Amino acid sequence: MTRTIFYTATTLDGYLADENDSLDWLFKQDIDNAGPNSYEDFITGVGAMVMGRTTYEWIREHLLALQEPWPYKMPAWVLSHRELPAIAGADIRFAQGGIQPIHADLKAAAAGKDIWVVGGGDLAAQFAEAGLLDEMVLSIAPATVGTGRPLFPRKFDLELTEVARNRAFVCATYKVLGPANDPAH
Amino acid sequence: MTRTIFYTATTLDGYLADENDSLDWLFKQDIDNAGPNSYEDFITGVGAMVMGRTTYEWIREHLLALQEPWPYKMPAWVLSHRELPAIAGADIRFAQGGIQPIHADLKAAAAGKDIWVVGGGDLAAQFAEAGLLDEMVLSIAPATVGTGRPLFPRKFDLELTEVARNRAFVCATYKVLGPANDPAH
Repeated sequence: MTRTIFYTATTLDGYLADENDSLDWLFKQDIDNAGPNSYEDFITGVGAMVMGRTTYEWIREHLLALQEPWPYKMPAWVLSHRELPAIAGADIRFAQGGIQPIHADLKAAAAGKDIWVVGGGDLAAQFAEAGLLDEMVLSIAPATVGTGRPLFPRKFDLELTEVARNRAFVCATYKVLGPANDPAH
Repeated sequence: MTRTIFYTATTLDGYLADENDSLDWLFKQDIDNAGPNSYEDFITGVGAMVMGRTTYEWIREHLLALQEPWPYKMPAWVLSHRELPAIAGADIRFAQGGIQPIHADLKAAAAGKDIWVVGGGDLAAQFAEAGLLDEMVLSIAPATVGTGRPLFPRKFDLELTEVARNRAFVCATYKVLGPANDPAH
């Protein structure tokens, strides 16, 4: 059964990138690639992926700078209201509009495998608000950045389902419950 | 040997309180009071505590509302540039000025026990920037609030020393290494 999963690394203070869109806080950390939250294990279960414009542009620029090809075999939806340059050899579907029909397309493409919500946090929150995000699978780095791109800029209740350690990282998996009720307001 | 410890609960997205200073996200969670990050165990090792103005006023207002007495036996430093009302029966030392002499006073009062940095995040960061914060002991709740009082509004490197689960919470202990070097900037 297809699950929709926000799988990401985050700083301890809840940012996906610092205010300069840098991931220096992430790449310097020690990790066992075969350990908990293994990317290799995760990606084999993914049938379709989806990301926002900023995430796509970040990946595209870094691939160009490194002269690396697009590394993903499954189709990738990029949600953007703007025209964006494509990437040679990549199966990218630019889309805009309602999150529900986009999720239906993702699910059809995933064909029983999982949907990876790559980021950013606002896109993950849009899926969650539509009741379409099942899990958050987080690798929490031992670093704070103070400000930057927020992990999940909404008030939400989660349920902790797994905790593990992978060297420098706390690995935590959450079931997404729903928007938090705030009795005082 | 006295350690200076930022012991606190935090949301998964790195806030100590939501934008209305509410802790609703915290109090509704399931916890084993004798489990990892036990408050009872922690507080018996504390010889002196320190907090900022906002934290003090939050505690004071809630004690008044509940008609509860000040619950701490050890001396508590409150760092504030303003005059603040005291609390009957509480050993509170209002202070301002440099963090180094305040830490020296805290250490003398702690007499070999630990110093608890209660909050907020900016105060903890001030101790860390002065090289005076040893550990962060965090109970991470399964909730996001999106915005509010930040956990630690600085760019810092940490070292993960312990991970455990206490029912709804991820319990993580970090050694504070120092401000992060950012090679790109």
